Amino acid sequence: MTSFTVFGTGNMANAIGGVVAKGGSDVQYIAHAESGSAQITGDVVVLAVPYAALAPIAAAYGEQLKGKTVVDITNPLDFSTFDALVVPAGSSAAAELQALLPESHVLKAFNTNFAATLVAGTVGAATTTVLVAGDDADAKAALIAAVEAGGLAGVDAGSLRRAHELEALGFLQLTLAAGEKIGWNAGFALAS
Amino acid sequence: MTSFTVFGTGNMANAIGGVVAKGGSDVQYIAHAESGSAQITGDVVVLAVPYAALAPIAAAYGEQLKGKTVVDITNPLDFSTFDALVVPAGSSAAAELQALLPESHVLKAFNTNFAATLVAGTVGAATTTVLVAGDDADAKAALIAAVEAGGLAGVDAGSLRRAHELEALGFLQLTLAAGEKIGWNAGFALAS
Repeated sequence: MTSFTVFGTGNMANAIGGVVAKGGSDVQYIAHAESGSAQITGDVVVLAVPYAALAPIAAAYGEQLKGKTVVDITNPLDFSTFDALVVPAGSSAAAELQALLPESHVLKAFNTNFAATLVAGTVGAATTTVLVAGDDADAKAALIAAVEAGGLAGVDAGSLRRAHELEALGFLQLTLAAGEKIGWNAGFALAS
Repeated sequence: MTSFTVFGTGNMANAIGGVVAKGGSDVQYIAHAESGSAQITGDVVVLAVPYAALAPIAAAYGEQLKGKTVVDITNPLDFSTFDALVVPAGSSAAAELQALLPESHVLKAFNTNFAATLVAGTVGAATTTVLVAGDDADAKAALIAAVEAGGLAGVDAGSLRRAHELEALGFLQLTLAAGEKIGWNAGFALAS
């Protein structure tokens, strides 16, 4: 069984921790990452924090994160315009995080899931699907197994390069919700 | 009622024409666009052709397309790698087409729908949703009304800048199907 550490205290932190705990994984929560002094116990570390917090966490916890799977869930929106991402065109927050943590296995996941759909387990009538992109096959398989044990569907969405597309999808979904085209308990479902 | 002209003879041309015809729209098909001499009768022109055909069509039919709505459905994949798009990072095929046709109202639509889901009207258990991006509100509203009359859902996905995200979504969906994670009769559904 995979052990998790979840950084963060928001809806997404609680929802993701809840899914994998339901699947039988041990979950450690680190609420106050800014101290830089927490001891990480999980093999998979979910950074359920805003984009701006990624670099400071990488700086403070880089040594502890070596060899671990690190999951980036962020949607790096430019909230001043809601019309673009703040990462360079063609890149992704996950690629930036991988560059900061070259000895960690960075995955992109959960950024296309609204918290309510993780808690409910459904998007409309469909089972909620967690799309997972990354370059380490074992890390992806372990995360997918953990979310499936928690009652969701998990799909390998390809290499970490696909984080660009996952962040585009997350951004699009946020604009649709902000524009009241969809609810915050809805969004994109994946039919197989 | 909106009148359509569909360029193309493939599955997507037939599927899109079928949807709007079912909704009561008149549909003209132009099978051999390369002659450059066809007379376009529709107010909305759907270019159901490969990405590489967009620029030649814009060159040959630019005069006739002035004032019309032009719908770009392409997914401009680099088929040699299946790992990137051929348009510049941050841009889109639709933005390129708008630059070639400055006096037309370019919309991005249908690129996130596999043909089979347009024909069936469903993605899994959900009604197929056509996502439409563009800068002209009336053009978007007319296309959305036509696809809804044909039994599908239509959603305004924002300005033409969102074509980048729609093309990312279409690309991601193609990689999932090519990798046999989903079927060619499935894909992303939108729950509202």
